Amino acid sequence: MVEKMKAYQELSKEELQALKTELETAYVDAKGKGLKLDMSRGKPSVAQLDIASDYFDALTSQSNMKTEDGIDVRNYGFLDGIPEAKQIMADMIGVSADQVIVCGNGSLSIMYDTVSRSMTHGVMGSTPWCKLDKVKFLCPAPGYDRHFAITQHFGIEMITVPMTPEGPDMDMVEKLVSEDESIKGIWCVPKYSNPQGYTYSDETVKRFAALKPAAMDFRIYWDNAYAVHDIYEERKDTLLEIFGECEKAGNPDIVYEFCSTSKVSFAGSGIAAVASSKANLDFMRKSLTIQTINFDKVNQLQHVRYYKDINGVKAHMAKHASLLRPKFEAVLTVLDKELSGLGVGTWTKPNGGYFISFDALEGCAKAIVAKCKEAGVVLTGAGASFPYGNDPQDSNIRLAPSFPTPEELAMATDLFVLCVKLVSVEKLLGKV
Amino acid sequence: MVEKMKAYQELSKEELQALKTELETAYVDAKGKGLKLDMSRGKPSVAQLDIASDYFDALTSQSNMKTEDGIDVRNYGFLDGIPEAKQIMADMIGVSADQVIVCGNGSLSIMYDTVSRSMTHGVMGSTPWCKLDKVKFLCPAPGYDRHFAITQHFGIEMITVPMTPEGPDMDMVEKLVSEDESIKGIWCVPKYSNPQGYTYSDETVKRFAALKPAAMDFRIYWDNAYAVHDIYEERKDTLLEIFGECEKAGNPDIVYEFCSTSKVSFAGSGIAAVASSKANLDFMRKSLTIQTINFDKVNQLQHVRYYKDINGVKAHMAKHASLLRPKFEAVLTVLDKELSGLGVGTWTKPNGGYFISFDALEGCAKAIVAKCKEAGVVLTGAGASFPYGNDPQDSNIRLAPSFPTPEELAMATDLFVLCVKLVSVEKLLGKV
Repeated sequence: MVEKMKAYQELSKEELQALKTELETAYVDAKGKGLKLDMSRGKPSVAQLDIASDYFDALTSQSNMKTEDGIDVRNYGFLDGIPEAKQIMADMIGVSADQVIVCGNGSLSIMYDTVSRSMTHGVMGSTPWCKLDKVKFLCPAPGYDRHFAITQHFGIEMITVPMTPEGPDMDMVEKLVSEDESIKGIWCVPKYSNPQGYTYSDETVKRFAALKPAAMDFRIYWDNAYAVHDIYEERKDTLLEIFGECEKAGNPDIVYEFCSTSKVSFAGSGIAAVASSKANLDFMRKSLTIQTINFDKVNQLQHVRYYKDINGVKAHMAKHASLLRPKFEAVLTVLDKELSGLGVGTWTKPNGGYFISFDALEGCAKAIVAKCKEAGVVLTGAGASFPYGNDPQDSNIRLAPSFPTPEELAMATDLFVLCVKLVSVEKLLGKV
Repeated sequence: MVEKMKAYQELSKEELQALKTELETAYVDAKGKGLKLDMSRGKPSVAQLDIASDYFDALTSQSNMKTEDGIDVRNYGFLDGIPEAKQIMADMIGVSADQVIVCGNGSLSIMYDTVSRSMTHGVMGSTPWCKLDKVKFLCPAPGYDRHFAITQHFGIEMITVPMTPEGPDMDMVEKLVSEDESIKGIWCVPKYSNPQGYTYSDETVKRFAALKPAAMDFRIYWDNAYAVHDIYEERKDTLLEIFGECEKAGNPDIVYEFCSTSKVSFAGSGIAAVASSKANLDFMRKSLTIQTINFDKVNQLQHVRYYKDINGVKAHMAKHASLLRPKFEAVLTVLDKELSGLGVGTWTKPNGGYFISFDALEGCAKAIVAKCKEAGVVLTGAGASFPYGNDPQDSNIRLAPSFPTPEELAMATDLFVLCVKLVSVEKLLGKV
């Protein structure tokens, strides 16, 4: 296959036809292997979970169940969470503990609640959104499908904002936010973005902090899900801490920040937190105190006893990195080897996070995902990373290398590149 | 004090005056003791929590973290909860496991979410309540203050329904519910009601199951918080299982039932569940699947490994009962000894649950609670058990004997009866 050195666009119709025949044969062979692999979701692997097995010895029948302040975690009360857990979560994202409320077992439900509360109770005195004719959110895309699912569930209109390696297109964000009072929020994954693995530049963070929204109840939903999720010790991204910039810009209330240990300790059994200004937190507490007596303080204490402090978390994450690194590299090696120079796709090479974002030729993503599935490799549904599940270019595919083994990933990616080639050839033949 | 054998109403003004002087002296003495006691909230005692200390050995680094079906509880997924936890929660309230979703660390947040979801998304296809001019709930009172706080928070109008030892006044419930389409729900604590400790009669349960509401989105919020919380083995109340009755009455979707282990394992760190018809649960799942990836399955597994099954729960609750019994009796003994026959109050003698309900002379509750507080005994705020915190009779006081020791309770109740007497005398003197 000398053709692979040459961009497909430069091939003649006859060369493409010959290539197509060759790829089809390879695809039939691949299907015959009966693969059953899943690169669809950002799930930690069993090996990652096993790293934390000592977590289950961190509290025993012999343990002191009180915090340093004497709070018995087994009984009611302390809505904000225990001080030690607040400190760890605050350190994870570089804020102070009094800016943090530690909540339940995942940050998604905090985000859902935050939107839900805005629907029924508004934001710090604004009209409840359910009383408004129109509420809109900006959605940098490709982005996190579960974010978009929340806004869609509440009937909030989603406006796609293009993503760049520096973050969302800030010219567009600034313009829309300043002009349209019905825009109430923007979803952001500022570090190791889902799915690209991009980290917002300092310039982008500063422009976010300095936004002058038309709506007083506009907030930035800053989902710092991958704050401590570096893969390479020697080249890790650094995200500028946004609250400090908000303060400087005279915008103290514009950000809600979310984080969790779901991809630190256990997925969906970690602890999650929201950070914001005192005014925002106090407004939240008015609802939270009706909603619950307290979040699970036993789980908070167990995290504290296990990790001790942020250094414990960082040491733990270095072990995660050593497991994730070969997985990302298994995928990237195949992509580089098989697709470089062919002109049929581009992909990201993140320094952390859980995903690789692949952009195929326009109109090819759905067909590639379908072909992979037919041969036993499940990918995230094409379009899932866009509002309403609709990628207008039908080009983006999210690859999630965390769960399978490196060997499985190499096999899955072999199939993936084969499908990319085959669909691309078919696409080009349709054009010529 | 021979007067105490005679009802205060039968005393002359002079006798009341003399009694008042005597009680005032006793009150000054009592204040001098510098008591610091709290009978305000239904908190488990440290001894109760200590019973479950082996819970923390139920999962260790050596444990198999998979359920019988092979679900790894440390990873994402399984919104409904793990099958073994569903079974325990179902058995706790006498329903089948497929009627149950196991949620987070407390049932209050499930109830809050259920109301919140109805506000934004309606109930199985009905108009979202936030789009309606008026939404009302029936509130049997005295009742649970946190229930009323939820409906108040969402601006839902609360209509008080009187409570009887058989349950709410069902004539009134039936009439209101059948006539008024804006009535969307009723709060119930059907077993060992908060604060009376009443258990609804079979007749009451059947009438609930057979309600013919004007509103298709009317639901009964059946908070079975004390399902396994008997205090006396030999005389425990039995609540008729309501879903069976709903089925018979052709009303399968009319009930949401809530329960938790907050007062079984740990307060605010247990597991909670909602039970309902398949149609109701499927409607809930549409939101839940947006709201969270899963609830905390590690905590669910730890409960399962610790309790094994419902028999483990029942054996555990027998230990709770042995701690709670002397506490209830410490309070009741003082009430009986000091107030019987005086005509200044009536009180309940529950077979389970967490509270005793005391009814003072009309217009006396606030003054009694204030006098107790002044002398170092904190009670639940007078009126807290009524919608809007407003007891129209100013008569009801909730006593919560679970947290203090029997000795502390005897002291606290001594002060309480003294305050009841003093305020009653003052009240009667104001009248004569």
